[in-house]
Amino acid sequence: MIDIPTAEEIRTVADRIRPYIHRTPVLTSASINNICGAELFFKCENLQKAGAFKFRGATNAVMTLKPEETSRGVATHSSGNHAAALSLAAQNRGLKAFIVMPRNAPEIKVKAVQGYGGQITLCEPTLASREEILQKLVRQTGAIFIHPYNNPQVIMGQATACLELLEECPNLDMVISPVSGGGLLSGTAISAALFSSGTSVVGAEPAGADDACRSLKAGKIIPLANPETICDGLRASLGTLPFSYIRTLVDDILTATDNTIIKAMHIIWERMKIIVEPSAAVTLAVMLEHAELFKDKRIGLILSGGNVNLEKLPW
Amino acid sequence: MIDIPTAEEIRTVADRIRPYIHRTPVLTSASINNICGAELFFKCENLQKAGAFKFRGATNAVMTLKPEETSRGVATHSSGNHAAALSLAAQNRGLKAFIVMPRNAPEIKVKAVQGYGGQITLCEPTLASREEILQKLVRQTGAIFIHPYNNPQVIMGQATACLELLEECPNLDMVISPVSGGGLLSGTAISAALFSSGTSVVGAEPAGADDACRSLKAGKIIPLANPETICDGLRASLGTLPFSYIRTLVDDILTATDNTIIKAMHIIWERMKIIVEPSAAVTLAVMLEHAELFKDKRIGLILSGGNVNLEKLPW
Repeated sequence: MIDIPTAEEIRTVADRIRPYIHRTPVLTSASINNICGAELFFKCENLQKAGAFKFRGATNAVMTLKPEETSRGVATHSSGNHAAALSLAAQNRGLKAFIVMPRNAPEIKVKAVQGYGGQITLCEPTLASREEILQKLVRQTGAIFIHPYNNPQVIMGQATACLELLEECPNLDMVISPVSGGGLLSGTAISAALFSSGTSVVGAEPAGADDACRSLKAGKIIPLANPETICDGLRASLGTLPFSYIRTLVDDILTATDNTIIKAMHIIWERMKIIVEPSAAVTLAVMLEHAELFKDKRIGLILSGGNVNLEKLPW
Repeated sequence: MIDIPTAEEIRTVADRIRPYIHRTPVLTSASINNICGAELFFKCENLQKAGAFKFRGATNAVMTLKPEETSRGVATHSSGNHAAALSLAAQNRGLKAFIVMPRNAPEIKVKAVQGYGGQITLCEPTLASREEILQKLVRQTGAIFIHPYNNPQVIMGQATACLELLEECPNLDMVISPVSGGGLLSGTAISAALFSSGTSVVGAEPAGADDACRSLKAGKIIPLANPETICDGLRASLGTLPFSYIRTLVDDILTATDNTIIKAMHIIWERMKIIVEPSAAVTLAVMLEHAELFKDKRIGLILSGGNVNLEKLPW
């Protein structure tokens, strides 16, 4: 038994975060349609504020805090997009954000967090160190921990991207979303279940960090050991709450190699003139590697983010 | 006396080309607003089919040909975006497109033309050679020459970008468009005059190819001698027909250096996650160089195109 949010609950979340987020465009590309032999609709969360869908979930989590919970701010550990998203969401409500980041986090991500007023505490680049430093910080400050994906308010926030996609493109055969911790994929699956009929949901994962794919097959969480992928946004281990939705609502999880992911990223940049990070391009990459599954179908792809170091491209 | 198209004529053009073009999104960026101290609305023609606004004018020109004119196809000379746009527009009507391109045209532009079925004839990289080879080609084939900007149907097509922008953002203080041959700027000025009140129109030009700026000041066309700018889309000389509109309807033309243009391009890529070519970034660049003129205003910027060699970025 899992407790799936209702359509009304997701719509309430969409109304709540609407004043803060971008309604991102859904773009199409005739030339990529030709490459894939299918009709593709790209939901451009790379154009979301703070550069990724993460801002939806972070905003919903921050805005649903009770007034008495807010006085000491929010906290999280993240090397990536959730850190910037939470900082901006907190700033919008006038709250402090305490962010634990690994020492080796890319400078561009550190700067983004600082730009949104987040207060950074550095830690060692291990999960153990991240969690230890975060616990200490939460004890010291009294800030509320907002988990990047193992949090129902975060998941309902991420669900609004697929809701908007389905509002514009109601008759999709399939929606593809990247999967890492599982917040976006589970939110996507919830909205596909609530707001469409006959739209199947597929997760896309790098072959070098395929714990969600294995977990779905095994029917239980197989922890991720040593992720090896260019997708810096897809190196987290699948969360328990997202997995409870994914195992029920997601039809399949497919993988692609880093080579195909880089190729897909280049195709999107070149043909669509938008900047996506490798973690977003994995959606097109699985279509390229498993073309036969998608032929002649109408397919939505959630382009999750666009935070890339422009001085260091993978081609 | 100039004969300005009517609102009804521009709307008819918009209706005519609608089935073929993308209605491109208007995007905003809180962080670029902060940098500029103004409220900016970016009309993203870099996301247009074939990667630039040129497809609007080319489509209108091709679709307004009389049936008896079409049997032998269309022709043009261009090293850039008009070549690809005309090839695609011709393909959409089932016509041949003959394109004269200089031998040194970037491979990416050659491939784009070929991808849309354009038939390329190479020429020397001089205007004289381009025109000579084109004339010969037109004589041999009987194709109709579609000039990239000195053509009323092309200008009316380009005007639809600003029409769409004003439909979404009706109360702009100002619209900024790049200027080279003048097709986009004159179309923009026509739509601003017809579909808004109190919206001033500013052209943006690289300092190293500032013939439109000089021409507007002199009240007559000052030909461009030796353009030196990174903006490969802005090296054409101002056309007589666009100039007749520009001198009447455009309030000012401002310039920016290549350094500022590259900086503006990087800001747009980094903050907005979209790919613009230098010729589009010149609009933001003039805001950076002449900040005092734009303070606290609501400003529309036409991002003209996104065709960039991703293997050879200017930073």
